[in-house]
Amino acid sequence: MEYNRLIDHTLLKADATVEQIEKLCKEALQYNFFSVCVNSAFVPLAKSFLEGSDVKVATTIGFPLGASATAVKAFEVEQALKEGADEFDMVINVGWLKSKLYRLVHEDIAEVVKAAGGKVVKVIIETCYLTDDEKKIASSIAAAAGAHYVKTSTGFGTGGATVEDVQLIRSVVGPNIGVKASGGIRDAATLKAMVDAGANRIGASASVKIMEELRIEGN
Amino acid sequence: MEYNRLIDHTLLKADATVEQIEKLCKEALQYNFFSVCVNSAFVPLAKSFLEGSDVKVATTIGFPLGASATAVKAFEVEQALKEGADEFDMVINVGWLKSKLYRLVHEDIAEVVKAAGGKVVKVIIETCYLTDDEKKIASSIAAAAGAHYVKTSTGFGTGGATVEDVQLIRSVVGPNIGVKASGGIRDAATLKAMVDAGANRIGASASVKIMEELRIEGN
Amino acid sequence: MEYNRLIDHTLLKADATVEQIEKLCKEALQYNFFSVCVNSAFVPLAKSFLEGSDVKVATTIGFPLGASATAVKAFEVEQALKEGADEFDMVINVGWLKSKLYRLVHEDIAEVVKAAGGKVVKVIIETCYLTDDEKKIASSIAAAAGAHYVKTSTGFGTGGATVEDVQLIRSVVGPNIGVKASGGIRDAATLKAMVDAGANRIGASASVKIMEELRIEGN
Amino acid sequence: MEYNRLIDHTLLKADATVEQIEKLCKEALQYNFFSVCVNSAFVPLAKSFLEGSDVKVATTIGFPLGASATAVKAFEVEQALKEGADEFDMVINVGWLKSKLYRLVHEDIAEVVKAAGGKVVKVIIETCYLTDDEKKIASSIAAAAGAHYVKTSTGFGTGGATVEDVQLIRSVVGPNIGVKASGGIRDAATLKAMVDAGANRIGASASVKIMEELRIEGN
Repeated sequence: MEYNRLIDHTLLKADATVEQIEKLCKEALQYNFFSVCVNSAFVPLAKSFLEGSDVKVATTIGFPLGASATAVKAFEVEQALKEGADEFDMVINVGWLKSKLYRLVHEDIAEVVKAAGGKVVKVIIETCYLTDDEKKIASSIAAAAGAHYVKTSTGFGTGGATVEDVQLIRSVVGPNIGVKASGGIRDAATLKAMVDAGANRIGASASVKIMEELRIEGN
Repeated sequence: MEYNRLIDHTLLKADATVEQIEKLCKEALQYNFFSVCVNSAFVPLAKSFLEGSDVKVATTIGFPLGASATAVKAFEVEQALKEGADEFDMVINVGWLKSKLYRLVHEDIAEVVKAAGGKVVKVIIETCYLTDDEKKIASSIAAAAGAHYVKTSTGFGTGGATVEDVQLIRSVVGPNIGVKASGGIRDAATLKAMVDAGANRIGASASVKIMEELRIEGN
Repeated sequence: MEYNRLIDHTLLKADATVEQIEKLCKEALQYNFFSVCVNSAFVPLAKSFLEGSDVKVATTIGFPLGASATAVKAFEVEQALKEGADEFDMVINVGWLKSKLYRLVHEDIAEVVKAAGGKVVKVIIETCYLTDDEKKIASSIAAAAGAHYVKTSTGFGTGGATVEDVQLIRSVVGPNIGVKASGGIRDAATLKAMVDAGANRIGASASVKIMEELRIEGN
Repeated sequence: MEYNRLIDHTLLKADATVEQIEKLCKEALQYNFFSVCVNSAFVPLAKSFLEGSDVKVATTIGFPLGASATAVKAFEVEQALKEGADEFDMVINVGWLKSKLYRLVHEDIAEVVKAAGGKVVKVIIETCYLTDDEKKIASSIAAAAGAHYVKTSTGFGTGGATVEDVQLIRSVVGPNIGVKASGGIRDAATLKAMVDAGANRIGASASVKIMEELRIEGN
């Protein structure tokens, strides 16, 4: 399996420098990762480093708290779209979900999907804060709102992807919607476990280390 | 508790005659039920019998299979609205739900909600055909699409309301959305059990018998 | 006799999935059935699976209770027509028939025939709820309103086609209008009995099993 | 000293519910805190709870990573302004600062100040990620760009306010610009230490506990 083509090579910390974004993009080119995933202020920079390659630029929306206004999330998509972003990793409004304001949760996602104009939208449900029922509800609403992927985690919450959560999300959304596992995937064994559990996209910062492990194993 | 004000007094069988619809309406007036629930061809008739009272006319949409086209459901609402219907009991497309086509399921409901122009929409998820996870997913999507009630059953499937299903739906949608129990509620004890489980609306054909039982018990 | 060319291969249950509709269509292609018969929400799907073949798409109207408003039935035809439906199996308003509101029953059918713009309309009279005289009256009115077939049953009532009912309907409508037997036709012997009684169209879900029985018998 | 009038009563976690926001506002009214500080999706809700009082609504911008595009930060201000926000707590782009892209850092702040149309803007420099020189540079640029306050921390980084950082920022910006200490201020002693070090605004979630401690001490 071409594991590299499943990976969104990711750098989202607040103090990521221009130099680090450049390194991220070079690694993505070298290993032919599916995309780099950066915060929206760095889209033009990543785009310029990846010019002419088929490595995509994914960017975060309403990240990582998901608590910015819906109109702000939609605007962030439009802005990033103009600057060349190919995919959008948005965070749901977890508080609205927990308050059972499902209509608002749906609208929040649907507005982002609409703003993305057909480009891939991944909906981060931030599993670490959710009960199993809330995970199911969030996944259902994301799918109903037109999301292309349900994604487990931001990496900034109290926990990341688990095999159980990936299986649960996959069981809800079925085969036609993607599942992205992210948060805490730092070695090849964990990546494989996520894929086995049903993930078809992986978010990772340790992607280079993972690829080297896979190479040694002969994958 | 004023149980009569929870009841949609219901007659939906294919061979319901004009005389039977008239009897239904007279009983609704006598017991001051919340509404009568009839198929859409009988809305003008029920409306004329209930003229000047505060008993509402609820009508079914895409009933009972839920498998008519979305545009047809919306049109059925518009038509019934023109003829005086106050509330709409629509059936989801169960096949789409089971095919995990959640976006279509959502749109199907949202179009009905839109056509209803603010009037109450109850979404029948037809629990007898669903797994517990599918019940949760359907309830989430109904709430996300702006439904006012999630309703258990059509009365034409392989089973009706259960206490467990009412509790499960209530746990998903929370206190701000209604839960209507319907299908097989033929005595006062069952009605009370549904209310205790979280139902705030009851669909029943045996409503008069139920009210007499409650009267004897002193409720 | 080419029994396969008499068969509307039928799947109308509420929980029919996309996968099951696909299977239905593939079987219809394999056995060259006259048509598939699906609920109106599935017309575009069936049409796409049957693209380029001569297997027709029949769809139900006001199904199975027949108690939706006349305007809704007509709209359902228009919608399905736009989406490629070739034939329409509508249900009469049984309650109106039993209330002797024959003018309304006629108009209900005539509006559907008009909306169908020349395409085949089959009128389901749902015999299980009717007296013999009501069956005669319903068949007469269907013929008077321009129906192409009188059809016995929806398969969702308390009974299906009987040899006696097929004979009775045929005796009323004569040779120039079709008779479709449907409901409970699950083996080759029953199919043949219906044809012998005067049916020239058969609705069945067990069509593949029936064809295999006929093949073994050498038909 | 009226310590309560220094406090922005704060709730910014991803899973903050409507109920918790309501509680926050009620406490702010009870203790007459200067403001509540919430994420931008919750501005309308907080505004409605505080209607008619003089407790202000502060909201976060580009929070907590500071890595959304400048145009997105400005739009978030405009949106929140329309919805009634009184003050704006923005996060600088730490990565740009560390990359010495000072012109971009300045523009990022200036655009927010401009969008705020004269309303108070606090600039969070996220001290935990900065060297002492970077803290001085960030404070200088914030002042140069028209900020009303320099604020130490988001509460989501690796560390919060320290006495040393408050003194350092105050020494750079002088008496005409405010200093807000935030992050980890959970008791009255810490609050007082921050005020003694030069802070004239305090961000805290434990504000009620702090006020009760101050009351017991007789402040």
